[in-house]
Amino acid sequence: MSETNLQVVLASRPGGWVEESNFRFVEAPVPVPRESEFVIRVDWLSLDPYMRGRMNEGKSYAANVGLGEVMVGGGVGTVVASRHPKFAEGDKVLCMPGWQRFALSDGQGILKLPDPRLPETVWLGAAGMPGITAWMGLGQIGKPKSGETVVVSAASGAVGSVAGQLAKIAGCRAVGIAGGAAKCGYVVKELGFDACVDYKAGPVDAALKSAAPSGIDVYFDNVGGEILEAVLRRVNTGARIPLCGLISGYNGADIPIRNVFSLLVNRVRLQGFIVSDRMDLWPGAMTELAGHVAAGRIKYRESTAEGLESAPRAFIGMLKGENFGKQLVKVS
Amino acid sequence: MSETNLQVVLASRPGGWVEESNFRFVEAPVPVPRESEFVIRVDWLSLDPYMRGRMNEGKSYAANVGLGEVMVGGGVGTVVASRHPKFAEGDKVLCMPGWQRFALSDGQGILKLPDPRLPETVWLGAAGMPGITAWMGLGQIGKPKSGETVVVSAASGAVGSVAGQLAKIAGCRAVGIAGGAAKCGYVVKELGFDACVDYKAGPVDAALKSAAPSGIDVYFDNVGGEILEAVLRRVNTGARIPLCGLISGYNGADIPIRNVFSLLVNRVRLQGFIVSDRMDLWPGAMTELAGHVAAGRIKYRESTAEGLESAPRAFIGMLKGENFGKQLVKVS
Repeated sequence: MSETNLQVVLASRPGGWVEESNFRFVEAPVPVPRESEFVIRVDWLSLDPYMRGRMNEGKSYAANVGLGEVMVGGGVGTVVASRHPKFAEGDKVLCMPGWQRFALSDGQGILKLPDPRLPETVWLGAAGMPGITAWMGLGQIGKPKSGETVVVSAASGAVGSVAGQLAKIAGCRAVGIAGGAAKCGYVVKELGFDACVDYKAGPVDAALKSAAPSGIDVYFDNVGGEILEAVLRRVNTGARIPLCGLISGYNGADIPIRNVFSLLVNRVRLQGFIVSDRMDLWPGAMTELAGHVAAGRIKYRESTAEGLESAPRAFIGMLKGENFGKQLVKVS
Repeated sequence: MSETNLQVVLASRPGGWVEESNFRFVEAPVPVPRESEFVIRVDWLSLDPYMRGRMNEGKSYAANVGLGEVMVGGGVGTVVASRHPKFAEGDKVLCMPGWQRFALSDGQGILKLPDPRLPETVWLGAAGMPGITAWMGLGQIGKPKSGETVVVSAASGAVGSVAGQLAKIAGCRAVGIAGGAAKCGYVVKELGFDACVDYKAGPVDAALKSAAPSGIDVYFDNVGGEILEAVLRRVNTGARIPLCGLISGYNGADIPIRNVFSLLVNRVRLQGFIVSDRMDLWPGAMTELAGHVAAGRIKYRESTAEGLESAPRAFIGMLKGENFGKQLVKVS
């Protein structure tokens, strides 16, 4: 291994939108495992919206990334050197290596890929953290009943696409919200949602009314902001809103929730959740989601950036909604 | 019964703050019971914030009051004429007579006062709808655990005072929020809350920090608006916010929820509820609350306006926070 370990570190904290200058590339030696350690070569890095929160100074879900530290991130990799009894060279693993080519591990939190018959990137998407996020938000908070209407924002994304397909599996009417005709077409034709509102095409209010004529029982919220406000005008009594992400609020500005009276009048349950709070539920969720993927009941799409060097730009594009499907970086 | 039946009807819908001109006094004949009916003389009328919502045109918890219709409201009264097999002259009843001196009833939703040893107005306050509201919001959504910190807004009011005292009974630190030194003194010295923030005395943020040094686990929200925003800056992970009322938003303006990111980061459950959704829980709640009142564990205070003529002014004062304790009108 004469390579060096290319890393992406946090150079500065973004004020609003993330810029490429917030990142810096550094080269470090490839780590060498000591007793009970092993080295992972990162094959795939997953880019996800939660990373934006980790770039802030303030409190987020978990410890934030310090200046000069390697950006956090999940990935799939291959064990290339091991002095650990349970991991051998060649093992494919699901891990949290961060934005770098090689990561040292003691095995903590590392999972061997559960089912070699599925493409390895599925464990970063539909059967991995994003899919589990959809599964958990619906299962723990949304609790959709057959015949109800479930609206999902960022519906073509890694989380939203699974949320809507799980709603269909549960016998619900699934309505997506996405930006642009291409994404909306994909959501309806490929993913099988019943309808999709293009928030770039015109007022969301009217489109939502015709897409969800019986009102909204569950809103899987990935974005917050004005779309949440529009949904609150159409919720039914007893609606549930799993609050999964606030892409619209990640960039500094706190976008308020308007139409608060609707929360009271309609007895709405609005609840934030974080998928890593219930690691105990992950194995069951992965098995269930992988089963749906294998059977073709859950479809997904990936957007791949080539090389670790492209990670900052791909990440910025994802925050702006420019990607289409689960955003990955092919690292090695 | 040579009297006429004085009634207060909705004359016009308020634009913002309610004004006396939104009401009109009319005189009607005292009703005469037919078979299976009886007439209630209203002794006490209860004034409650939910009535503001019923004055609007839009959707509220229940059917709104139509123009020219008698204002809705709960009360305690005496049966003065009966052709109903289960209600006799002289029976004291808890009822929804509206803002008038006499009401006709077929017995639907009428409860004989459960325990004659307690003052009859307690069934309009601590052991009635407001107390049950506190009991339900805490029990169904807040679920406070011993040692947790429970913050209650409008803490000297009919609902808030019971919410805080129930939190104390549950072994929690109870922190009130109220307007003015007199109300705050009452909340701490009479009701036994651990602390009370005077929102009129200065910034709520700093006062809340010192009153709730371990953060906030449950916020029983009676007001919405800026106080909710301040609370969201101090909530602990997994906090629960029963959303009971939005006095700050009743007057036309929808006051947005800011600090939304906190809902996500702290996995907050924010949930609106309406006490009348779970009538099945009322009998048990009334028994429990009456027991606390009889034993002196729950104290309360009343503010009485004399005569039905004073109802509009008393109602407006209550919406502005001018009353102190449960607002009643002595009708007969």
